[in-house]
Amino acid sequence: MSTERLFYLPLGGAGEIGMNCYVYGYGAPGKERLIVVDLGVTFPDMDSTPGVDLIMPDTTWLEERRDRIEGVFITHGHEDHIGAVGHLYDKLRAPIFARKFTAALARRKLDEHGAPESALTEVEAYPAFVEAGPFKVAYVPISHSIPESAGLCIDSPDGRILHTGDFKIDETPVVGEAFNRALWEEVAKPGVKALVCDSTNVFSPQPGRSEATLKEPITTFMKEATGMVVATTFASNVARLKTLATAAEAAGRTVCLLGRSMQRMTQTAKETGLLEGFPNTVGPEEASEIPRENLFCLVTGSQGERRAASAQLANNNSYLGISLQEGDTFLFSSKTIPGNERGVIRIMNQLSEKGVDIVDDNSGEYHVSGHANRPDLMEMQKITQPQMVIPMHGEHRHLRELAKLSQAEGTAAIVAVNGMMLDLSGNAPKVAEYIDTGRTYLDGSVQYGAMDGIIRDRIRMALNGHVTVTLIIDENDEPLGDPWVELMGLPETGRSNAPLAEVLEHDLGQFVGRAKAKTIRDEDALDKELRKIARQVTQNEIGKKPEVTVVVSRLS
Amino acid sequence: MSTERLFYLPLGGAGEIGMNCYVYGYGAPGKERLIVVDLGVTFPDMDSTPGVDLIMPDTTWLEERRDRIEGVFITHGHEDHIGAVGHLYDKLRAPIFARKFTAALARRKLDEHGAPESALTEVEAYPAFVEAGPFKVAYVPISHSIPESAGLCIDSPDGRILHTGDFKIDETPVVGEAFNRALWEEVAKPGVKALVCDSTNVFSPQPGRSEATLKEPITTFMKEATGMVVATTFASNVARLKTLATAAEAAGRTVCLLGRSMQRMTQTAKETGLLEGFPNTVGPEEASEIPRENLFCLVTGSQGERRAASAQLANNNSYLGISLQEGDTFLFSSKTIPGNERGVIRIMNQLSEKGVDIVDDNSGEYHVSGHANRPDLMEMQKITQPQMVIPMHGEHRHLRELAKLSQAEGTAAIVAVNGMMLDLSGNAPKVAEYIDTGRTYLDGSVQYGAMDGIIRDRIRMALNGHVTVTLIIDENDEPLGDPWVELMGLPETGRSNAPLAEVLEHDLGQFVGRAKAKTIRDEDALDKELRKIARQVTQNEIGKKPEVTVVVSRLS
Repeated sequence: MSTERLFYLPLGGAGEIGMNCYVYGYGAPGKERLIVVDLGVTFPDMDSTPGVDLIMPDTTWLEERRDRIEGVFITHGHEDHIGAVGHLYDKLRAPIFARKFTAALARRKLDEHGAPESALTEVEAYPAFVEAGPFKVAYVPISHSIPESAGLCIDSPDGRILHTGDFKIDETPVVGEAFNRALWEEVAKPGVKALVCDSTNVFSPQPGRSEATLKEPITTFMKEATGMVVATTFASNVARLKTLATAAEAAGRTVCLLGRSMQRMTQTAKETGLLEGFPNTVGPEEASEIPRENLFCLVTGSQGERRAASAQLANNNSYLGISLQEGDTFLFSSKTIPGNERGVIRIMNQLSEKGVDIVDDNSGEYHVSGHANRPDLMEMQKITQPQMVIPMHGEHRHLRELAKLSQAEGTAAIVAVNGMMLDLSGNAPKVAEYIDTGRTYLDGSVQYGAMDGIIRDRIRMALNGHVTVTLIIDENDEPLGDPWVELMGLPETGRSNAPLAEVLEHDLGQFVGRAKAKTIRDEDALDKELRKIARQVTQNEIGKKPEVTVVVSRLS
Repeated sequence: MSTERLFYLPLGGAGEIGMNCYVYGYGAPGKERLIVVDLGVTFPDMDSTPGVDLIMPDTTWLEERRDRIEGVFITHGHEDHIGAVGHLYDKLRAPIFARKFTAALARRKLDEHGAPESALTEVEAYPAFVEAGPFKVAYVPISHSIPESAGLCIDSPDGRILHTGDFKIDETPVVGEAFNRALWEEVAKPGVKALVCDSTNVFSPQPGRSEATLKEPITTFMKEATGMVVATTFASNVARLKTLATAAEAAGRTVCLLGRSMQRMTQTAKETGLLEGFPNTVGPEEASEIPRENLFCLVTGSQGERRAASAQLANNNSYLGISLQEGDTFLFSSKTIPGNERGVIRIMNQLSEKGVDIVDDNSGEYHVSGHANRPDLMEMQKITQPQMVIPMHGEHRHLRELAKLSQAEGTAAIVAVNGMMLDLSGNAPKVAEYIDTGRTYLDGSVQYGAMDGIIRDRIRMALNGHVTVTLIIDENDEPLGDPWVELMGLPETGRSNAPLAEVLEHDLGQFVGRAKAKTIRDEDALDKELRKIARQVTQNEIGKKPEVTVVVSRLS
């Protein structure tokens, strides 16, 4: 019997939607050769990650095994799959593989971090395979909401794994490759050990709709609108950009792109030969001189992002010379991702204040999802007939639901969350090890761990405010004057109607005056007491215990 | 011609969903006698109001006219209508009116703030009227998602206003008064000058469904569930509590209430004679000994609130002796309010980790809204035939949509947001004045204004972290030692791989060493320079400009 094993280890994306990163290993335990699928990011929020710029998987485990990584395979160009390739390049220094369009996006990110040309290899689709140690990996085209998405066919000595990546079953995707059932049947034919499968839309019971169904309603919409039309969607959804722009053109509207990623995505798609028949566009200066009923602006910011073009148009009188007014129409050709509602609603209300009519995807006419719904997820299992199903790309509830559905069909399935290493060598998946995983924060120009306490302190300051207490102790260990207090994020007066800072200085001063020489000499004890009193007095005065910085200066 | 005028002035709830507060005035301009409708709160969030406990309307304008307030009329017991009666009592000291059940809820809040018994008057429904200066006010029962809701019939010398309060058209509301079309027709018969109308659900195109439609699906659900069933909804939705509890009883389940407001609401509803036929309940201790297939827990926390019973059950191994496990079912008999998605999803995933099946309102079988949908809003206009419509209880987009729909029917309508005083004396509403309005934050035990900068500083500390810089200047205006730096919410090391605090101390020390005596002597200039350098150096090191507290101690 072989002492080798085949394992699956999610480091991100399993038990959450975002920062996808999945590891496969093959070899003797502890000596497996590794491949990594995707290196994505998650976006921060004020609730849990204030001030953070990006969230990435903690790759410590991979870094410690850097010499065993055969390659990083990026399935497609969405930020939650590709977003960390630049930021983590230096830590992993592993060769990166991607198809042409995705590679063009990755190239830009790698360049920003000074990675060499050789870091990235552009690959052809199946039947081409990349040799990666004990693995052979092929990119199997699959439909999704960005061009050139691919599932991976991963051959190992223990059998074939199909890693779907993000997908939907769309036979008319407008841009890029249609879902090719025959191709997937062919890939599955030799037998599939494990289907590692997208689970995001498992709670959507109806069959998914094709991108092509949007053409007619969007064209009608563009023709019926009387003033300027603005539409927003993810810039990476190149098919949607094309549908929107060609519909606008058919309605006699000139197309203007607003927002950096709109420009970049259309340009990259054109350069890689994926976007043909896209109307000519004009810049904002030219656009502002076109009669509004002949203008269509395609803008970034479908998720309510504060700095994106949609927020700028909604929030300001004018953005790059373009301003919205009564009679204009704003189309959200997008779905609001849970957690982004407040930002999107803010924009809607700002637009409403301008008299702009808002159309969102409530009707279902102007947006379709890029992920396979429940019937399509089960269809994928029928096509590929896997020995076992491992749901990924989902919160725990999504993973669990898809596992249950698969088991109900008689297929072995398991819920594996980040850090759970599954041994796939046998006939059913079993848990081999638990790996410490976590999140790495990019904050300004620094990366640090989610558990380092930095963000915890920021959240505490946001909830409780901050008090600075300073005290000078002279050469004889006597206090020199009274403690001094500065407040930040706290009301100036409380219960006793005197300034809070003065009440604090008075009470801290009383303590210092009475304190024994031993306490004054003991740095830790003095610090602790001053902090305790500052918190207690503030609690009495305003009903809140603040964060406290104590600085005792000793003149010695 | 009369020099008197009749006005409407929203101070909260118009242009937002929450903290409802509407003022009506009648009299000579500047001398009008006033009535206030509702004194509600809004709940804070981490994005915009970290650490705040409650948000209330800014009542400065009312306080300055306190002697002219004839009364505060509370339409119903939801927190966004009644939540501030206690907190603001001392500021307004105006008599408060409410119907029996609402009064019982208000009583508790007023008691907590030491308001006298006489502060609150319990009123009967229409045809009884309360005299309030030039106004006569009657409570006209209307259906909503809490018992004893009422619209107000407000008679003034300039005509009759109907203020709907929150409502739906429900002729079988399970608990409390059914919508009585004949009654509303009767009230409208003398002619309605203005219908001030709920607009929250104006974007829901289908007719609203009755609370009674839930009975059958919920009963089936309770019978089909195999393990323990837990359901959550707003505790104030007494009709829903009854439907859930009686369905559970019919399925052979004993009912256990978890969460303070569940206890309080059922108790208040029973005491005021509104809740009959509610099954006997058991406490958690007794419940934990009942076989799980015979147990039903009705719990608080439908919006994912961190401290409520649903979060405790999801997050902990056990809560008050009750624990959830594989095979149990958790029902969200509720809709997630936009902005609360993250909290609700967190609970769902925690439940999923325990193997609990989750059922939410996606099917529409287990929840109905308490607000009138678009067809019902228009139906209300048909019933009351108002001269003008003023939408309220909505964000700008809701107000605008209802105004547009009303205008399309030939009725005068206007979008009036908080602070916009409308003169209703003529045949169409017109803007009379703009009043400064805002929000008052309750933060610990202190109330202060939203624009006071306190919360702005907290948000900045959360986004940027905090640096404390201290420096001692001796009697000769010479620096005594180097500046000292403390960090909070910032990474310890940055670009130069030395501790950030040390880099800052070094660079600040260099500045101080080189600074001219004039700069050292100038408190403001020195403070400003130290702050600037601290921000700049931190930016260089970690790519972030922090908030800075500078304390310069002068020994003189």
